[in-house]
Amino acid sequence: MLVAPMIERKRDGGALTPEEWSALVAAYTDGRVPDYQMAALLMAVVFRGLDRQELAALTDALLASGQRLSFEGWPTPRVDKHSTGGVGDKVSLVLTPLVAACGVAVPMMAGRGLGHTGGTLDKLEAIPGFRTALSLAEAKAQVLRLGCVMMGPTPEVAPADGRLYALRDVTATVEAVPLIAASIMSKKLAEGLTALVLDVKRGSGAFLPEREQALELASTMIGLGADRACPTVALVTAMDRPLGRACGNALETEEAILALRGEGPPDLMALTYALGIEMLLAAGVERTSSRARKRLENALGSGLAAEKFEQLVEAQGGNPRVVEDPAVLPQAEAVEVYAAPRTGVVARIEPRIIGRAITAMGGGRRRLEDTVDPTVGFVVSVKPGDKVLAGEPIVSVYARDSAGVELGCAALRDAITIADRAAASLPLVSHRVSVHGVEEFTPPQGKKGKAASR
Amino acid sequence: MLVAPMIERKRDGGALTPEEWSALVAAYTDGRVPDYQMAALLMAVVFRGLDRQELAALTDALLASGQRLSFEGWPTPRVDKHSTGGVGDKVSLVLTPLVAACGVAVPMMAGRGLGHTGGTLDKLEAIPGFRTALSLAEAKAQVLRLGCVMMGPTPEVAPADGRLYALRDVTATVEAVPLIAASIMSKKLAEGLTALVLDVKRGSGAFLPEREQALELASTMIGLGADRACPTVALVTAMDRPLGRACGNALETEEAILALRGEGPPDLMALTYALGIEMLLAAGVERTSSRARKRLENALGSGLAAEKFEQLVEAQGGNPRVVEDPAVLPQAEAVEVYAAPRTGVVARIEPRIIGRAITAMGGGRRRLEDTVDPTVGFVVSVKPGDKVLAGEPIVSVYARDSAGVELGCAALRDAITIADRAAASLPLVSHRVSVHGVEEFTPPQGKKGKAASR
Repeated sequence: MLVAPMIERKRDGGALTPEEWSALVAAYTDGRVPDYQMAALLMAVVFRGLDRQELAALTDALLASGQRLSFEGWPTPRVDKHSTGGVGDKVSLVLTPLVAACGVAVPMMAGRGLGHTGGTLDKLEAIPGFRTALSLAEAKAQVLRLGCVMMGPTPEVAPADGRLYALRDVTATVEAVPLIAASIMSKKLAEGLTALVLDVKRGSGAFLPEREQALELASTMIGLGADRACPTVALVTAMDRPLGRACGNALETEEAILALRGEGPPDLMALTYALGIEMLLAAGVERTSSRARKRLENALGSGLAAEKFEQLVEAQGGNPRVVEDPAVLPQAEAVEVYAAPRTGVVARIEPRIIGRAITAMGGGRRRLEDTVDPTVGFVVSVKPGDKVLAGEPIVSVYARDSAGVELGCAALRDAITIADRAAASLPLVSHRVSVHGVEEFTPPQGKKGKAASR
Repeated sequence: MLVAPMIERKRDGGALTPEEWSALVAAYTDGRVPDYQMAALLMAVVFRGLDRQELAALTDALLASGQRLSFEGWPTPRVDKHSTGGVGDKVSLVLTPLVAACGVAVPMMAGRGLGHTGGTLDKLEAIPGFRTALSLAEAKAQVLRLGCVMMGPTPEVAPADGRLYALRDVTATVEAVPLIAASIMSKKLAEGLTALVLDVKRGSGAFLPEREQALELASTMIGLGADRACPTVALVTAMDRPLGRACGNALETEEAILALRGEGPPDLMALTYALGIEMLLAAGVERTSSRARKRLENALGSGLAAEKFEQLVEAQGGNPRVVEDPAVLPQAEAVEVYAAPRTGVVARIEPRIIGRAITAMGGGRRRLEDTVDPTVGFVVSVKPGDKVLAGEPIVSVYARDSAGVELGCAALRDAITIADRAAASLPLVSHRVSVHGVEEFTPPQGKKGKAASR
């Protein structure tokens, strides 16, 4: 295969044919196309993008490099949720059992934390014994039995994407919307879904901070899903501050369990409901937002969701007692309180600084092969807009030792700004994007407010 | 060294520091930076360019990866000519001995043909015994003794450029002005020159066909030369038709020898004089174009230039009888005449098609490691604007066999357009570019016209 002329064409603004993308990905996976040619092509894609046909072809080629789940003949709808990643985002741990408890199967392939962002697998693995390395066969059996699975990437699925991602990571070609979209969708389309809901983060702690980029990524993935018989909807959500209170793997797992027991922080619950409503609507099990919300509230309030999580933990080798007693989670050696340095209003809580501090304290990854300490992190008990008094405890710092505490406190001094007045912050959910386009998001009312249909 | 953040910075429009370029090239040469990261960076450079400081730093780093000629203390000026490459361009073979015969040393490191373009080394190697693989020490000794050398690339000079060029060739990152400029200048600056003259081709057969690109490349190299104590001047010349009549290695060598004996075709002579004048002026041995031209005409007319070429051939192991009797050059097995298919005016002679046909007939390279058959090629006895009659012989085709003749004739049917009227063609020399900027070129008059100083 002559690759240089293809690179040249892409470089000069042309397109590769679907056949070329397919042959190229196959040859790259076989090692017949070297990394250096793929790296040059990827950089050309960063500048030139991919047209809709190319994007579909690349996604199909990545998908075709491996196997996929098939639930043919099984009538239960399957819907997954994918988030572009943030700090304190433990929604998947709450949402997966919650939606499964509502009769919609969730065959979730999740990811690990990297850089400043956390990852669902790391949070789950904080539970003693929890196993995320499942085969597709194990995953399918569990979905058929329990209605949900939360598994790690398996080499059975889109192996070409795994190789490509590793290359993108070291060649500064990660931040390209079509490449991100193809990578995510090649894995999601392997899950045998009937629909997909995306949580596209924006704000300073998001992978793509700008609204326009977030909307472009959402639209791109929605187009891909639509073209591939997987109806896709996206919510654009805030990542200009951490989500919930807990940041750090075991701490977030604990917060997720509290949420499943009805004691989650308001922003975590609001986002969980917003995404859960979309999942139930996309699955077709409810026709209005208010009915979907009621169904979710019932599943949570009745304890069914928590029970589903307990079953999931047990099925995947974890200690199911964690749901009743989160103290079975590993505990940090050193705990310290961080107090407000002055009186005022919380203006900013910078998620990127919080996330990087967790990595520096041993709880995150610089490289994919790093191991993480699940115990370290923060519980931030204030939100932007809250009034605080000098000396008031506002964060608990969890670390391995006093040096870790020092690191954590130093990061908090940078991350949290207390000012004379509140600063603007993003609405928790700002837009809903579907094949029909972008609309401003109106939150449906929960049981504490008025009922409102969409 | 963390390369990904550097790639990212370049991708996003920033610049690398001179220290970073230096460290990067050194690490790449050592194998500490892999090809795939360099390939991604090169593609980012294709889109983002290099600022003047970066360009100088990259050139210096390539230069510093090897050795250079030093003529310290030797009072003779050294000037080289570099062409960006074309079809039928045998100027170097005429110009090098001609300028040396005028008292200006020419330490020329030349290149091989690639793709549709020919290369000086291949033409020289058509001479039985001619050796281009000289060491720097051999080259220096020959320059001190004879005043000229025509050698191939040696691993002693800018080895990092050799590695980088091989990578660019397979990653579609060749056609970037700053990379071309750094590559050329890193080798030219190793020649120990006092000045440099560039022949920047434009037109359909040129590497960079557009005038703007040609001018940009010229200005970039001139700036680099000026910054590195090597005053540089460029002529922008026509490559919308082959130069001279002969195209193909041995055929071009024969034409160059005829030119040295005063029997060269007018366009070849005009370009040789135009470039030679610039070389003598840059060397400071003449102060006006008309005096420089006269000196060149005398060196040619007296036979001194042909004698210098004979000495050069002998010094480099070739059969010096070639100057007297070009029939010592290898001769093609099959020769055929190609006749004008209709009556009319020659509108186009497409150099790219001619060059590709030579490659297809075995006389060029698809890859640098290919060997070439020196005998194949064309002698095109018409020029755009010439009137021809149907059936009139206009090209001689030289091939290995009748299949080669067929290939050649088929290419000529594509390459040569005979129409009812002449088409526009580029002036042989259109611009002169120096540190003072771009000026339209006015050809100085030769002995057949009026004398004119510049």
